[in-house]
Amino acid sequence: MATKTRTQEQAQAQEQAQAQEREQAQTHARRLQDYEGPVPPSVLEELQRLGERLQGVKILHINSTRVGGGVAEILTSLVPLSSDVGPETRWAVIEGPPEFFEITKTFHNALQGEPAVVTPEQLELWQRVNERNARTLREALEWADVVFVHDYQPLALVEHRQPPKAQLWIWRCHIELVFKAISRLAGPQPGVWELLQPYVERFDAAVFSMGAFAPGLSIPQHVVPPSIDPLSDKNRELPARAIEDVYAQLGLPRDRKAFLQVSRFDRFKDPIGVIRAYELFKRAYGLEGETCLILAGGGATDDPEGARVLREVRAYAERFDDVYVLERPPTSHLEINALQRGADVIVQNSKREGFGLVVTEALWKRKPVVAAPAGGITLQILDGLTGLLARSDEELADRLQYLIEHPRVGARLGEAGHRHVREHFLTPRELRDYLQIVAEGLEART
Amino acid sequence: MATKTRTQEQAQAQEQAQAQEREQAQTHARRLQDYEGPVPPSVLEELQRLGERLQGVKILHINSTRVGGGVAEILTSLVPLSSDVGPETRWAVIEGPPEFFEITKTFHNALQGEPAVVTPEQLELWQRVNERNARTLREALEWADVVFVHDYQPLALVEHRQPPKAQLWIWRCHIELVFKAISRLAGPQPGVWELLQPYVERFDAAVFSMGAFAPGLSIPQHVVPPSIDPLSDKNRELPARAIEDVYAQLGLPRDRKAFLQVSRFDRFKDPIGVIRAYELFKRAYGLEGETCLILAGGGATDDPEGARVLREVRAYAERFDDVYVLERPPTSHLEINALQRGADVIVQNSKREGFGLVVTEALWKRKPVVAAPAGGITLQILDGLTGLLARSDEELADRLQYLIEHPRVGARLGEAGHRHVREHFLTPRELRDYLQIVAEGLEART
Repeated sequence: MATKTRTQEQAQAQEQAQAQEREQAQTHARRLQDYEGPVPPSVLEELQRLGERLQGVKILHINSTRVGGGVAEILTSLVPLSSDVGPETRWAVIEGPPEFFEITKTFHNALQGEPAVVTPEQLELWQRVNERNARTLREALEWADVVFVHDYQPLALVEHRQPPKAQLWIWRCHIELVFKAISRLAGPQPGVWELLQPYVERFDAAVFSMGAFAPGLSIPQHVVPPSIDPLSDKNRELPARAIEDVYAQLGLPRDRKAFLQVSRFDRFKDPIGVIRAYELFKRAYGLEGETCLILAGGGATDDPEGARVLREVRAYAERFDDVYVLERPPTSHLEINALQRGADVIVQNSKREGFGLVVTEALWKRKPVVAAPAGGITLQILDGLTGLLARSDEELADRLQYLIEHPRVGARLGEAGHRHVREHFLTPRELRDYLQIVAEGLEART
Repeated sequence: MATKTRTQEQAQAQEQAQAQEREQAQTHARRLQDYEGPVPPSVLEELQRLGERLQGVKILHINSTRVGGGVAEILTSLVPLSSDVGPETRWAVIEGPPEFFEITKTFHNALQGEPAVVTPEQLELWQRVNERNARTLREALEWADVVFVHDYQPLALVEHRQPPKAQLWIWRCHIELVFKAISRLAGPQPGVWELLQPYVERFDAAVFSMGAFAPGLSIPQHVVPPSIDPLSDKNRELPARAIEDVYAQLGLPRDRKAFLQVSRFDRFKDPIGVIRAYELFKRAYGLEGETCLILAGGGATDDPEGARVLREVRAYAERFDDVYVLERPPTSHLEINALQRGADVIVQNSKREGFGLVVTEALWKRKPVVAAPAGGITLQILDGLTGLLARSDEELADRLQYLIEHPRVGARLGEAGHRHVREHFLTPRELRDYLQIVAEGLEART
């Protein structure tokens, strides 16, 4: 009886999940024509040409999660758009036990340069989970002409690829690869990158977000920066009313200029540095009572380190009555959109940054942005053209004051930032780059 | 009698010089409407609005040379355009004996981080020459409402400004200021920047080409990148015939893919590194007989260091029959234009670069560019978006091969590079930024 109930419950849960997924897929269905306007015609024309050339080609994207995180956000928009322009495109997600994701988290840390150890047992489990997924996904894997594998979790699937030449396999790396810190296995074993490199080199090509992240490989390497979707809840236009509502609900003042940083509570985003710079700004320029600072982000509930950083930030912010620290769930896309649109200046004080899509979001909203020159931020903030860079708390304070004193320069930077994102960092451009790699890869075969 | 002849000769020479200047001024006369097409409408509209607002305002630009070098090239186009949009704008040039320019060359080296010594006598001569020029230019200086002083040669003119508030004085710094190397006067004296800073701080504002070049100052600092003129001989469209003629005249092959670096023969541009990378490229990819490398530039005739570098490059290039080293006079604008337009890939291997307008020129011509990530090049070459960056000879060889293998990616990078320059690095955008600073500065007065 208990068994039956569980089965019923499971069936019900599964059905609900499927319904939710269908609904979501519908909400996010993207067609080429939806992007006319936000995206430059030249990109759409090229995308259409490539799509037509790849008519009949079957493309499979594989990653390790359908919801949460940048890769899932990108694929949610990119996969249906890819089908719409030509090649039939599917998205599969690998599954694994919690230990598997602990191991791949270790890979992640090691690849980004932190000390980390992977034992031979862990490596074996990672391979075994990939092997099991290769069986589960056999049908999709046999169906596909082109397989995009995103990041390191499903990397070992490549061991189960069809005989070379039959398919095109492309590895898409979304993270910053840092090579200076080579992590070691327990014992005198090769580092994590050395463990993964042989898998990567069984692909036909690899794709990185920035040229600086690309290691030397025996296969062709391409650079394709990531993108945001101008039609998503995070980025679409909002009525002024919706913005005011969110500020009111969150108890934020509207009679002051608002500085905003949106990010996980993470030391690499240096939220306390932002408050320190804000203190300096107020002390130096005597604008007491005319401004406020908002720090908003998630990642504290499921991340012990995040919760610690949040506590520290709250403790530090306590002495100010014009600093607001808001923990928001990672799904609050509309709310974050409203916060960004309602702010006067947006700050991103990252000390390390894979790409920094939150900067892309702010620029898309025509906001003046002050950011630290970390990772992909330097592709987005061209100092003095599309925003301002700040290398220290003092420079950050100085740039905040500059933008308050020169609102027209701020508006001009925001406008140029918007055009910069329009040109380079929207979904159709990323898809075009993928399809160009596919077209050239398939052509080289024939 | 001899005296009379000399006077006649002088008069004749002066007349010729004036005629030449008039002709040149005419050739370079720029009107706002000339830029419709090459420049985004939003920039032109803003420029027009600012120009109308500044109707009746008199602007004077002062530098130290009318011909040769980036500042003169910029002012040649910018000054007439400025008058055309609204404020009456004039250009004056200071004069000085050769010793004066030797001293300012020392300033230049010291400010860019090289060891250099300025004696008290030299400093005094520099001040004296400025004082003399303040007298010669008295009429223009009294006429102006706004004075732009370009670089460090005429910097001390500011001592002779009208009483503060009567005029707006703006210092425009075109060079990269490097602060790590503080040069010392003979004896325990302050460094060159410390000598110049008090002059700079007598201005109402200072303008730098990149945020990273701006020192901490007590006056407002603005960031305005330099620009190229799409209508100049260096950059305007050329008929295919003209390009072929230049290649034929210079004995360059047209049945091979051409790699080109245009730059003075200067160690900081690392021409030998380019040849080394080209060697690596050929050895690794076996494309012997299908490519050639062209190194073209001036600066060797009047610069002993340049002549030495040219000799070294020639000696190094001698062993290859597909490397062409061309010394061209600095006035060969049309020829350089043709060389750039005829090349397949353009290289800029600079180890240090104030801004790198030669990269701007190449991108404007829709060329795939591979460059080292020095100074202002990082504002122009967004790695994988508007060109490719290379951090070593090996990476340079790799990127050359990549562009030969992926001509469509090269075309796309060149197209994106062109749009990037159109958006950010053309004359009207630089003028708009200047006029915005002027408008805000004058407004703050009233």
